[in-house]
Amino acid sequence: MGNRKTISRRSLLTGSAIAAGLALVRTATGQWVNALVPEKIPLDPTKQLGAPQGKMGTRSTFEKLEKIPSDTSSRTPLHLLQGTITPSDLHFERNHGGVPAIDPNQYRLLIHGMVDKPKVFTLEDLKRLPSFSRIAFLECSGNFRTGKEELTPQQICGLTSQSEWSGVLLSTLFREVGIRPGASWFLAEGSDAAVMTRSIPMEKALKDGILALGQNGEALRPEQGYPARLFLPGWEGNTSVKWIRRIEVSDQPFMTREETSRYTEKVNGKIRQFSFDMDARSIITFPTYPVSIEKGWIEIRGIAWSGRGKVIRVDISTDAGKKWQPAMLQEPVLDKAHAYFRYFWKWDGNSTEIASRVLDETGYLQPTIGQLINARGKDMGGYHLNPITFWQVKKDGRILLRPQNWK
Amino acid sequence: MGNRKTISRRSLLTGSAIAAGLALVRTATGQWVNALVPEKIPLDPTKQLGAPQGKMGTRSTFEKLEKIPSDTSSRTPLHLLQGTITPSDLHFERNHGGVPAIDPNQYRLLIHGMVDKPKVFTLEDLKRLPSFSRIAFLECSGNFRTGKEELTPQQICGLTSQSEWSGVLLSTLFREVGIRPGASWFLAEGSDAAVMTRSIPMEKALKDGILALGQNGEALRPEQGYPARLFLPGWEGNTSVKWIRRIEVSDQPFMTREETSRYTEKVNGKIRQFSFDMDARSIITFPTYPVSIEKGWIEIRGIAWSGRGKVIRVDISTDAGKKWQPAMLQEPVLDKAHAYFRYFWKWDGNSTEIASRVLDETGYLQPTIGQLINARGKDMGGYHLNPITFWQVKKDGRILLRPQNWK
Repeated sequence: MGNRKTISRRSLLTGSAIAAGLALVRTATGQWVNALVPEKIPLDPTKQLGAPQGKMGTRSTFEKLEKIPSDTSSRTPLHLLQGTITPSDLHFERNHGGVPAIDPNQYRLLIHGMVDKPKVFTLEDLKRLPSFSRIAFLECSGNFRTGKEELTPQQICGLTSQSEWSGVLLSTLFREVGIRPGASWFLAEGSDAAVMTRSIPMEKALKDGILALGQNGEALRPEQGYPARLFLPGWEGNTSVKWIRRIEVSDQPFMTREETSRYTEKVNGKIRQFSFDMDARSIITFPTYPVSIEKGWIEIRGIAWSGRGKVIRVDISTDAGKKWQPAMLQEPVLDKAHAYFRYFWKWDGNSTEIASRVLDETGYLQPTIGQLINARGKDMGGYHLNPITFWQVKKDGRILLRPQNWK
Repeated sequence: MGNRKTISRRSLLTGSAIAAGLALVRTATGQWVNALVPEKIPLDPTKQLGAPQGKMGTRSTFEKLEKIPSDTSSRTPLHLLQGTITPSDLHFERNHGGVPAIDPNQYRLLIHGMVDKPKVFTLEDLKRLPSFSRIAFLECSGNFRTGKEELTPQQICGLTSQSEWSGVLLSTLFREVGIRPGASWFLAEGSDAAVMTRSIPMEKALKDGILALGQNGEALRPEQGYPARLFLPGWEGNTSVKWIRRIEVSDQPFMTREETSRYTEKVNGKIRQFSFDMDARSIITFPTYPVSIEKGWIEIRGIAWSGRGKVIRVDISTDAGKKWQPAMLQEPVLDKAHAYFRYFWKWDGNSTEIASRVLDETGYLQPTIGQLINARGKDMGGYHLNPITFWQVKKDGRILLRPQNWK
């Protein structure tokens, strides 16, 4: 998990900060440090006056929450989270040219092409439009890793996260510029160094597309597209173009690099393009590697979601997929959102495998890797893989992934 | 808004952090700084490779979000937020002996009194119990300020915030120890320096009380009761005892300091005790002081909530309370949760007053300050005040609070 070396607390403080009762600093490894909290934790905290209020809350220094960054992405620690909201600083990222630094006062969004009134919007213009917010997941279509037993849910599928997204409905925005008859697609262009571009059907935009300005109550984080991004609920993350600067309305798709040479899948030898919907998926987040369990009652927990609507049911198997029993779902189950499930299981100490599978409101049941191979062929590539994840329970209580290799 | 002096970025970085692509630090004033983002923002961000992924997301340095700390509390910047979730580091705090530093490995919760099996739970014990999560607001009963025109929603009522709370239902916990016949109250005791204690009716605990371990996906923040707190949805915040270390079950209330000399209200000369429910309330969060507006269409936005259940309707007046029109409510409207409302209004440039009022599912309509005085008398103290907030709109576009003084 990287370098745990931390910066000296004291060296981070200024006299004025201490005088103001403020000592919140973050170390290079992402740990919170409040230097006014004593280094030595008292055995009886009631015998010592606590730290004063600050302008910002902190994390306990005992909580180690981190994403796993790679060259192009970072993964949410799903197995260390509770409930369904992802803290904004732990939301996964995926980018193609780094995180651009954008001055919100310089930000502009151009909408042109097959529209009645081409317009340039400032951020203030966008904030004045009718607002909207909803809770939904966002998932990268390349969200699958396997191949060894020592993998956590974060490593296997940490490229999904959930937030309350706020902003302006695309339908509102398009009403402002007037869509011409025959317009059926638009190009979304980012202002990152990759100038990310994707073609989006107008139908999706008018159904539930959002121009997002906010996330979990505050402005978007830079990694999430600050100050404005597309957000297309339930669709592959790449289409929710971040740092959006231009929308061009057309009567056909634009065939950009990221929808021709990338973000397409081989299905039985043919190439599938514009595979937007994220298929229903679930994963157990507890108990999983690297946790060990003991004999007795265990609450199996996890999340399930579908890009096509609501989760209807999650089944749990504790005998390697022979029998399945429904789990409890935490209400309210929201459309195109991570749902939280739990299932009580008494482990008898024998080796077995546990797994979850989800049924969504379209009747789609999460497949096994074998079913995926049967449907698409062995050469199906790395996008839109949502197989059931089986976890091996060893006699000594260790939990290990059942690797699912097919190439 | 306090001292804006910041710590030099470069001085906060170690060589190893830069090598790892990590440069996330927080200054004494709570600002995020990513030292790998260039100091000079490029006019065209596409011409420059962006910052790499990190282990933690950051805030844009252009976003100034802070609580207002006092000696005993800090207030959520309601007027700067979007949607309904409060970022955890901006959740209001109120404490009576500072924020204790607690080692989760040393943490213990004792449940005793009128129970079959007194028990001490470790944090690990609690995490093994059946889990639960819900989105709900938390509000301090002393959440009202007035007296001058230059007040923001944060200053007036920033002692309410909203999170997804996760943990164990109190009903589950009490099943573990077995409640004896006749048990009707319990004492909740905190491990802060104030040793905060409150008496809670068993009925509430069994209805929807939570022993909360998590907030917005992660462990509780220290200011919010890390590692465990009571959470009683819809009830005055003080009853949701933080850093809880002891629960004593009884057949009567304990008459602690905080429910006799404090957290009681004068109602027509008599003292009202155990006034747990937070009454329905709403507040416009845009446009409000210190914002100025211009003639034309404006989306009036705000939040509404009730400790007794769901928000049914929010009305808006743009003529100082003579006429009221229903606002739009953002679905889903959740039980005992902040609901987000909006209302489109065309300001003609004349001076007026705008206000919101909420109706909850019990039929309770948010009162004016006059109605509160009529019901309770002029000597009603500072708790459970939820009057309609009127905002003056001046001819020059300035928005100022209508102060509501009665003493």
